[in-house]
Amino acid sequence: MINPKFKALLSGKSVIRELSEYATERGRKIGYENVFDYSLGNPSVPCTQSFTDAMTDLLQNSNPVSIHGYSPSLGITSVRQAVAESLNRRFGTCYETKHIFMTCGAAGAVAHAVRCVTVPGDEVLTFAPFFPEYTQYVNQTGAVLKVVPANTRDFQINFDAFEEMLTDKVAAVLINTPNNPSGIVYTSDTLTRLADILRSKQAQYGHDIFLISDEPYREIVFSGVDAPFVAKFYDNTLTCYSFSKSLSLPGERIGYIAVNPKATDADIIAVICGQISRGIGHNCPPSIIQLAVSRVLDETSDLSVYETNMNLIYSKLVELGFTVVKPGGTFYIFPKALEDDANAFCMKAKKYDLILVPADNFGCPGYFRMAYCIDTEKVIRSLDVLEKFVREEYGV
Amino acid sequence: MINPKFKALLSGKSVIRELSEYATERGRKIGYENVFDYSLGNPSVPCTQSFTDAMTDLLQNSNPVSIHGYSPSLGITSVRQAVAESLNRRFGTCYETKHIFMTCGAAGAVAHAVRCVTVPGDEVLTFAPFFPEYTQYVNQTGAVLKVVPANTRDFQINFDAFEEMLTDKVAAVLINTPNNPSGIVYTSDTLTRLADILRSKQAQYGHDIFLISDEPYREIVFSGVDAPFVAKFYDNTLTCYSFSKSLSLPGERIGYIAVNPKATDADIIAVICGQISRGIGHNCPPSIIQLAVSRVLDETSDLSVYETNMNLIYSKLVELGFTVVKPGGTFYIFPKALEDDANAFCMKAKKYDLILVPADNFGCPGYFRMAYCIDTEKVIRSLDVLEKFVREEYGV
Repeated sequence: MINPKFKALLSGKSVIRELSEYATERGRKIGYENVFDYSLGNPSVPCTQSFTDAMTDLLQNSNPVSIHGYSPSLGITSVRQAVAESLNRRFGTCYETKHIFMTCGAAGAVAHAVRCVTVPGDEVLTFAPFFPEYTQYVNQTGAVLKVVPANTRDFQINFDAFEEMLTDKVAAVLINTPNNPSGIVYTSDTLTRLADILRSKQAQYGHDIFLISDEPYREIVFSGVDAPFVAKFYDNTLTCYSFSKSLSLPGERIGYIAVNPKATDADIIAVICGQISRGIGHNCPPSIIQLAVSRVLDETSDLSVYETNMNLIYSKLVELGFTVVKPGGTFYIFPKALEDDANAFCMKAKKYDLILVPADNFGCPGYFRMAYCIDTEKVIRSLDVLEKFVREEYGV
Repeated sequence: MINPKFKALLSGKSVIRELSEYATERGRKIGYENVFDYSLGNPSVPCTQSFTDAMTDLLQNSNPVSIHGYSPSLGITSVRQAVAESLNRRFGTCYETKHIFMTCGAAGAVAHAVRCVTVPGDEVLTFAPFFPEYTQYVNQTGAVLKVVPANTRDFQINFDAFEEMLTDKVAAVLINTPNNPSGIVYTSDTLTRLADILRSKQAQYGHDIFLISDEPYREIVFSGVDAPFVAKFYDNTLTCYSFSKSLSLPGERIGYIAVNPKATDADIIAVICGQISRGIGHNCPPSIIQLAVSRVLDETSDLSVYETNMNLIYSKLVELGFTVVKPGGTFYIFPKALEDDANAFCMKAKKYDLILVPADNFGCPGYFRMAYCIDTEKVIRSLDVLEKFVREEYGV
């Protein structure tokens, strides 16, 4: 029979996905240029020419049996080595090939990391606001995701609530900085305090607590913002990365887990992830994409448009009286709605063809998310619409 | 803590992988041309030029944001539609877009299919000899793989044993035709009888029994052999396919599940697979590979070398007195060893730099597998070595 657990999920359709589908449908009717779709976190800038060149070169000048052949289940060795070297070059770390496990994007990385360091029944803590798919990544392993309430003052960590929830049952803590949906980057102070608490609780409980650091937005950090490398603060860190945003390759499913060389069992965690992948049929990320990405590891697409967009939107939101924390990175901003019910707020915005995502699913009711990975020209036009909307609906 | 279930798997290293690593190591010492490596099922022929052209065209002439963008979690709609149409054209079936779920190869397809139609504790039957990774695909879902003993006469199904094991606890039956490792193709008679039994037991037990048909070798069928399309025999069939072998793209992780339109819940199985993929972080197979494959769906690489190799090896094995069933497809052959202990037999062969895989892991002790996806020139040289080996060691 069809597994009822998965069948039940069908009723819980993603709000983001529904809004995005609505926007597409609406665009067909009134023209896409007239729908201001802030729903989806889909990069709007192209990949680098160097990536396209690397792909073309591999296709034209390499043996097809070799470039399309099976990757070892941990990833192609030369690619893993290149990733380790790139991290060491950029962050002064000491990764070796054996610490890198190539994954199908950050989703695959986080799902593998959770399976690796938990057993069913264990708790995994994350911090509101959080990416709603974490619920699936964690709960489908048999572990249980618990959400620490948000610190809405600056969207750094709510440490009081965290310490209260960090019981003996917690096997891992899952963070995401720069953060989807708040756009906030954890400061060195935040990471230092987080690490201190984790170390102290590890000692107290007598077991490891792993820090799973989901970092797909690591390269999208705005000027003047310090974005420290998380793994440097805490030994038991599993860094989950994706090239989806840095190289604008979300569909190609390529990322990695980097295991801190000082973590417990550091030398076998990647190998264990390989065993996990056997059971879920992941096997390996696409070979040719691994090879092409390994040639452009230190590059990114031109990500400057996101900061341009952020500044425009942030200024307008402030001007209109919104409560909003200025993002330090990503392509998200996370203002407070102008009424308690963010769903109602976003429904009203929809009438203006302004597609905003209410944040109940992100663990932070009353707020909404705007994903500003769209053309700046459209952002500018949308701000007039935003102003019209809030003046007419809320008398701002 | 590190999940002990996955940690325990580390001790059960794959025999195939170990032999393949040995062959590579040995090749470094004595030259690769002198090692006759029949261990790995890695295609030896290149992908079609049309696939390379499709990739190059996409890279050069399409919008990179679009070709590398997120795929919907069920696969790109135009690709799913093209797959359905290709199947209908070739096999006279009635698939629609909604019946196709794009996967990361056949591994992802089988793992998703099992998760979809079982609950933990259910039994899944498969038939010896079988691909050893099935143990992982099934058991990591919480279901339990049970292996029906082989019919070593012709490697069709051992129906007596099957009927005995087909209890009320069985939720799915997993078959693989053309078969790895035997090379045998199930006949229409076999599939008819299998379907009859399944229908009768469904009625008797009052619940569905799904047939999961793993078909990565569907296009490698030798002359004169009839390879019927499995789903035409039984409504509750989930066809799991991979382009790894047909297009020689094993590293690019691209395949699909085709849900028989007459299956129970046919219209939602693909959607449920999408929900499953959220939890394991699969999300979607690589976008550009989906798009490129969809342009060459009815093509295959030049697969003729496999039949040439098979005929050479089969003749020599028969000449040397081996018990062996002539393969109808794939690039495997599955002879009986010349002593009861196939491990001992293969260890002796290793001394001649002839790398054969003992079949204990395939559920068929006393046999061994040869994967003849290697150059014909090398096959010819290997046969002299095989003859020398069996004459010297077994006085044949």
